[in-house]
Amino acid sequence: MTTINLGLLGLGTVGSALVDLIEKNAGSIESKIGKQICVKKALIRSAGKPRNLPADRLTMSFDEILEDPSISVIVELMGGIQPARAYISAALRAGKHVVTANKDLISEYGQELFQLAAEHGSVMLFEGSVGGGIPIIRPLKQCLAGDHVTSIVGILNGTTNYILTKMTQDGADYSEALSQAQALGYAEADPASDVRGLDAARKLAILSSIAFNVRVKPGNVYTEGIEHISARDILYAKELGCIIKLTGIARETADGVDVRVHPSLIPADHPLATVHNAMNALFIKGVAVGELMFYGPGAGGAATATAVLGDILEIADGTTSSMRLSSCTCFRQMNVRPAGLNVSRYYIRVLAKDKPGTLAKIAGILGKYGISLRAVIQKATINDMAEVVFVTHPATEQDLNQAMEEVASHPRLFSSATVIRFLDCR
Amino acid sequence: MTTINLGLLGLGTVGSALVDLIEKNAGSIESKIGKQICVKKALIRSAGKPRNLPADRLTMSFDEILEDPSISVIVELMGGIQPARAYISAALRAGKHVVTANKDLISEYGQELFQLAAEHGSVMLFEGSVGGGIPIIRPLKQCLAGDHVTSIVGILNGTTNYILTKMTQDGADYSEALSQAQALGYAEADPASDVRGLDAARKLAILSSIAFNVRVKPGNVYTEGIEHISARDILYAKELGCIIKLTGIARETADGVDVRVHPSLIPADHPLATVHNAMNALFIKGVAVGELMFYGPGAGGAATATAVLGDILEIADGTTSSMRLSSCTCFRQMNVRPAGLNVSRYYIRVLAKDKPGTLAKIAGILGKYGISLRAVIQKATINDMAEVVFVTHPATEQDLNQAMEEVASHPRLFSSATVIRFLDCR
Repeated sequence: MTTINLGLLGLGTVGSALVDLIEKNAGSIESKIGKQICVKKALIRSAGKPRNLPADRLTMSFDEILEDPSISVIVELMGGIQPARAYISAALRAGKHVVTANKDLISEYGQELFQLAAEHGSVMLFEGSVGGGIPIIRPLKQCLAGDHVTSIVGILNGTTNYILTKMTQDGADYSEALSQAQALGYAEADPASDVRGLDAARKLAILSSIAFNVRVKPGNVYTEGIEHISARDILYAKELGCIIKLTGIARETADGVDVRVHPSLIPADHPLATVHNAMNALFIKGVAVGELMFYGPGAGGAATATAVLGDILEIADGTTSSMRLSSCTCFRQMNVRPAGLNVSRYYIRVLAKDKPGTLAKIAGILGKYGISLRAVIQKATINDMAEVVFVTHPATEQDLNQAMEEVASHPRLFSSATVIRFLDCR
Repeated sequence: MTTINLGLLGLGTVGSALVDLIEKNAGSIESKIGKQICVKKALIRSAGKPRNLPADRLTMSFDEILEDPSISVIVELMGGIQPARAYISAALRAGKHVVTANKDLISEYGQELFQLAAEHGSVMLFEGSVGGGIPIIRPLKQCLAGDHVTSIVGILNGTTNYILTKMTQDGADYSEALSQAQALGYAEADPASDVRGLDAARKLAILSSIAFNVRVKPGNVYTEGIEHISARDILYAKELGCIIKLTGIARETADGVDVRVHPSLIPADHPLATVHNAMNALFIKGVAVGELMFYGPGAGGAATATAVLGDILEIADGTTSSMRLSSCTCFRQMNVRPAGLNVSRYYIRVLAKDKPGTLAKIAGILGKYGISLRAVIQKATINDMAEVVFVTHPATEQDLNQAMEEVASHPRLFSSATVIRFLDCR
């Protein structure tokens, strides 16, 4: 029986889960593809830790893997840009196939790497880079290849979804929920890339590039995190029949691709509203197919390892670089629409001096920029300031931003202001 | 540019939607795969109807399509067993590739057709046969190929889901909701195959065969429809925090594969409980991946056409019969577990003679077969009979069936009885 030898870069959470999975399901894999999969060498950074591979298969030298002619597939699970970029490039140049779950790298340097793969007859697959174990890259690239995808709305980051779920279910404030997430391993010691929305932006860039056949990079994605969301916002949202989620939104519009990551108020009966804890979900609309949703674990070693192994098996089964649906399909040129052109309804919570005319003042400022109000809630007073929540009718972000700047220019009347968009369900 | 010529069998709802889709997205298809797709000939049963293909591409002779050497892919969208089986067999024997959305045929004769395909170097894909536009066959066969799937719970039939949704939302009774579904085109004039669960059983047989690598046929699936569900059951279910859905359940157990289609009481907070109207959803558990859900339109011409076109593009892009993940992967032998061994909790609604001791009598009969009660609701009296709902603790179906037979043997004490299983969420 033919053996497909892998060179594994990185033996952390996903890498070691992959080794386990390959061992555990060896029998069924052989029955399915008629070939054996063997992790011939794994690249580690430091010796001495307990590993689930025999010592003679561990190496600290990438070159040892690159130069092993029996290794035909390189599986990169180190994460980060360097040295992953250099290693993958070298592997592709050597005609080896690559499987990666590296969202940072694919979102930033996907084009360059796909180019290299095409030049050298290699295949590069990356199902594990978005949505952990959720099959989403292959469904988008292949199953929906004949349709015209018009929008994606996703909960793409498990850490922030866990934090917001805790805030919603237990009334915890942001910092409490973050500490809890850190204690349980759902958030890293430095949570910046998650809570500021950068992780979600990278995943959204990858999905948008595939869905719209246009190269979208993380820098193109308007990105806002969840650090400014308070328990009070979540309570008001509830009163408005909504829950707050960190959403990745990508839409094709007449003015270009609209790609954004920010918190949104989602109607409680929207399918995404029931996605709790560290789960991820993607809601996709296509002209012909209508609405689809994909839901599952967005992270975790074992779950992500299933996506990586699916890619490995596809390559082992004979996918070639001449099959174009697996390679780069960014054949369109399209602008990224400036975020200021986005139109949505807004939730605005302000602390305002509790005296006659203050409410009229803010309504006047909003009105000056053409923003009309749909609802106002005023019931709490905090340190002599009235807490007021405004719900607007649809307005552009540039108008809203100007209005909010003017509100901020009256510091004696208004102190803090929080703005959250409603999910546009059109 | 290479052109892939299709022979299309059937120009009904899905077939004509496919023709439209290919025409509308011709540009993006060419950019994605570097080839053109052309519907060279379409087989129709009767002339004279308006068609979205020019007359010179229509034929009433299958042989004309079979014998056209320029046609390399046959797309079968006629449905039903014959003549589809004969046509597909002939196409595979002639070395043509086949794309079909025919669940009846694949579930009943999949093995024979895959065998033919393998012998003649042909590929046969069938993404459209289950779940309409939802990508599910390819994710199960390829993305999850490295995992061990242990269970599938699905809402697999749009017609019955529409009927049950109307009954739940409007309090309509079964026959009213059915008429409404027929008026809106969600149910056929003869709704038997949908409302009796046969359509769902065929789809479940296909999914189980893929997920467990075991050949499961529709006849192996224990099947019960929704005709006996009344508006009263839906009201009681609500009181118990549940909603009623027609579920397809497939699980790997120590005693074999457990495959069943029947109505279930689903907890209102289960992801499947929010799948309304004609939408379908599949909830899949794998050892490594955990829980996944796929949601979307389970029927409809345009939605199903996207699945069919995805398959066509995969073949046009170069998938070959030597790639084993696309072909038959039923390499395991496994029994189908007798339905009587199924263990679940039950909802039992009976009309019982309203006199002292009747309730004790029925509790006694259940107790005799080892079935203990978790809750009893009695509040309505209908024509001198008390309506009583029992909720049991877990029990086997063979025990329950014996108990219900004994209950039925006292026609003067008990008239009708409705039994519905609770969805086993373990």
